[in-house]
Amino acid sequence: MRAVDLIRKKRDSGEHSREEIDFLISGYTRGEIPDYQMAAWLMAAWLRGLNRSEIASLTEAMLHSGEVLNLADLPGKKVDKHSTGGVGDKTSLILAPIVAAGGLTVPMISGRGLGHTGGTLDKLESIPGFNVNLSLEDFRRVLRECGMALIGQTAEIAPADKKIYALRDATSTVENIGLICASIMSKKLAEGIDALVLDVKTGSGAFMKREEDSVRLAEVMVETGQRMGKKVVALITDMDQPLGRMAGHSNEVIECIDVLSGGGPADLRELSIELSGWMFFLGERTTTLDEGRRLAEAMISSGQAKEKFKQGIRLQGGDQRIVDNPQSLPQARTHAGVPSPSAGFICATNCEQLGTALATLGGGREKKEDTIDHAVGLEFHKRIGDRVEKGEPLVTIHYNSGAKLAEAQSLIAASYQIGESAPGQKRPLIRRILGG
Amino acid sequence: MRAVDLIRKKRDSGEHSREEIDFLISGYTRGEIPDYQMAAWLMAAWLRGLNRSEIASLTEAMLHSGEVLNLADLPGKKVDKHSTGGVGDKTSLILAPIVAAGGLTVPMISGRGLGHTGGTLDKLESIPGFNVNLSLEDFRRVLRECGMALIGQTAEIAPADKKIYALRDATSTVENIGLICASIMSKKLAEGIDALVLDVKTGSGAFMKREEDSVRLAEVMVETGQRMGKKVVALITDMDQPLGRMAGHSNEVIECIDVLSGGGPADLRELSIELSGWMFFLGERTTTLDEGRRLAEAMISSGQAKEKFKQGIRLQGGDQRIVDNPQSLPQARTHAGVPSPSAGFICATNCEQLGTALATLGGGREKKEDTIDHAVGLEFHKRIGDRVEKGEPLVTIHYNSGAKLAEAQSLIAASYQIGESAPGQKRPLIRRILGG
Repeated sequence: MRAVDLIRKKRDSGEHSREEIDFLISGYTRGEIPDYQMAAWLMAAWLRGLNRSEIASLTEAMLHSGEVLNLADLPGKKVDKHSTGGVGDKTSLILAPIVAAGGLTVPMISGRGLGHTGGTLDKLESIPGFNVNLSLEDFRRVLRECGMALIGQTAEIAPADKKIYALRDATSTVENIGLICASIMSKKLAEGIDALVLDVKTGSGAFMKREEDSVRLAEVMVETGQRMGKKVVALITDMDQPLGRMAGHSNEVIECIDVLSGGGPADLRELSIELSGWMFFLGERTTTLDEGRRLAEAMISSGQAKEKFKQGIRLQGGDQRIVDNPQSLPQARTHAGVPSPSAGFICATNCEQLGTALATLGGGREKKEDTIDHAVGLEFHKRIGDRVEKGEPLVTIHYNSGAKLAEAQSLIAASYQIGESAPGQKRPLIRRILGG
Repeated sequence: MRAVDLIRKKRDSGEHSREEIDFLISGYTRGEIPDYQMAAWLMAAWLRGLNRSEIASLTEAMLHSGEVLNLADLPGKKVDKHSTGGVGDKTSLILAPIVAAGGLTVPMISGRGLGHTGGTLDKLESIPGFNVNLSLEDFRRVLRECGMALIGQTAEIAPADKKIYALRDATSTVENIGLICASIMSKKLAEGIDALVLDVKTGSGAFMKREEDSVRLAEVMVETGQRMGKKVVALITDMDQPLGRMAGHSNEVIECIDVLSGGGPADLRELSIELSGWMFFLGERTTTLDEGRRLAEAMISSGQAKEKFKQGIRLQGGDQRIVDNPQSLPQARTHAGVPSPSAGFICATNCEQLGTALATLGGGREKKEDTIDHAVGLEFHKRIGDRVEKGEPLVTIHYNSGAKLAEAQSLIAASYQIGESAPGQKRPLIRRILGG
């Protein structure tokens, strides 16, 4: 078998066998197939597409390029959630303690933010002392002790994905459903989970802006996971506006603590209960989804989820006192409002642009190497459908450096579409459910 | 400007500006754009295509990646011929002396054989002492002295092409009309020529098997050359069977000497006169094509072309005595026939397979690094339409090592399609003429 022939095959719309995909991925991981051949193959695959069976083979080959955790010795089913990302999307920090408190094990390997989206690891690092770089041995120890652990991708987990992702980024071959699915699912399945809940975002702040694209990605991920013997459900959820009231790292941690304390904004609370409910149900902790939802609510109202969050923080070296005293998290020195330019109703937001404004202020990364100002944040006062008066603040910006304040303000002001009447039908937070 | 954005643009079927193509080619030549980005772009260009204006920009960018010869100080117009290659295609060694003897300058930068096709440089190297690796300075000196010189691509000529060609070879992005055109035309235009005659082969032994593909490539090359102010004609010529009676390096040199001496097979002689005629006409040595053909014939019958060939060989360090004594060229130790398996008429040949059989015997390269046995050759006894008896030899194999004789014999036997009646219409040697 030769890489050049496999490139030709995909170029000519051929279908790869499992052996061919194994050859490509294992050869590339070992450095026997050079970057330029993989780059040509990726572009051919991007343009010609990969079918379901090729996507399954690719996912499996990438999964087995590294270590696949076996957590069979830990109690309960192992469940995780993956979100395709958006603005203010912070549910991992809420779900993990709820579900671990409820008796399941949540081995969560997460990512960092890039562009307009935030990342779970970055949010956790706003907690003083919190260490996301655990060895797999320590990851297992923390999981055993408290049922939850949140870490970054290690060198052992799906090394093929790490190498291929960097190449896709440099060769404009990122946005392809098959390649995205294999990248996500290979990492998640390496966690040794029994069940996975996928939160596939759709709308102006999502990676996939059109609902039909989100649905296609969700279908492929659900099928790929199920082919590999896992229970998988995908919720297509709204990202036409930020989730919750806060975006920015320490501000989002505060909002998560609010939810774990029984408060927090309605949308964030609703989605957290829904996702936790599915995790309990797929993890066979409850026999119905509705029972799962009620268990999630009980974990909050009893304070058990909040206590679990403290334990998790402590076991990963963080200062657990922030849970009872959220104001001790990094705070921005000053703030400024973005007044509404007119009176009317919020009809739509350019949610991606709101995320970009946050990054502009230092609360996100433009390039992987950029450092993050954890204290910077945006506080959203208005949601789609809300009435706003001229001059009333749409957003409060919490910032440290004023250098790019004006740029961020104008990005934010331009992100709100204000009309004379409220938009007709309110679109639901959860649009569709696939699999499960 | 960033390479990743240009890859995305081509991936999404965008049209590149001249500046964008310059950025890609000059950046890649200088090593600032890595192989993997160029590989992704090449695959996107292969699949999405390049339009005429992009092909012209690409050709020019590759041309100007290195030195462009200025031969204005040499007498007469500078003309060259390029063939897309085939089996037994040896006209360069005939045309160069004819046209130089007729008073024009022929600065010919040629290639080597690969796969089933032969290469001019390899054929010349069967002449003892012949040096194809002249410096550009020596190239110019030989041209001044005798009006013809045949060398290989130097490091100074179109370095972008050299680098890109190697990458295309490894990434299955060779067979694309725009990329082929830019590769050929950038090298040929770097020779500092005024006019170019293209011999675009079509048929079972050609790179382009289908006539419509050959015509498309020819059209693009003619237009690209003309956009750059050159006189260009393309002849679409037959490669459904080998050209002449001989294939293999020293055997082909002998056949060229036959033609230069007034003999040789009819098809080779006809094509040589035709191509020389066009070179004289486009090089403004004659006012009509027909006059060009007559001048070519006169150069042969007067012996001037043969004398020019001797002078050319001598000036490039070769032993000119081979022209009067062709049997002093490398000869194979022994020979074997390939008898016809049945009686009937030759209806078709798999001409590429005949070339592959020659390479199998050591008379060609499978990989670039392979060495060539110049003495090995095939002698074709039958042409399409000829009557053949059972057991009568189709081909005589001249070989040194019998190791792969049986393999070559069966390849050759399987290459002839023998029917009960002769094929209807004889297809002409010269199918179409474009440009001029």
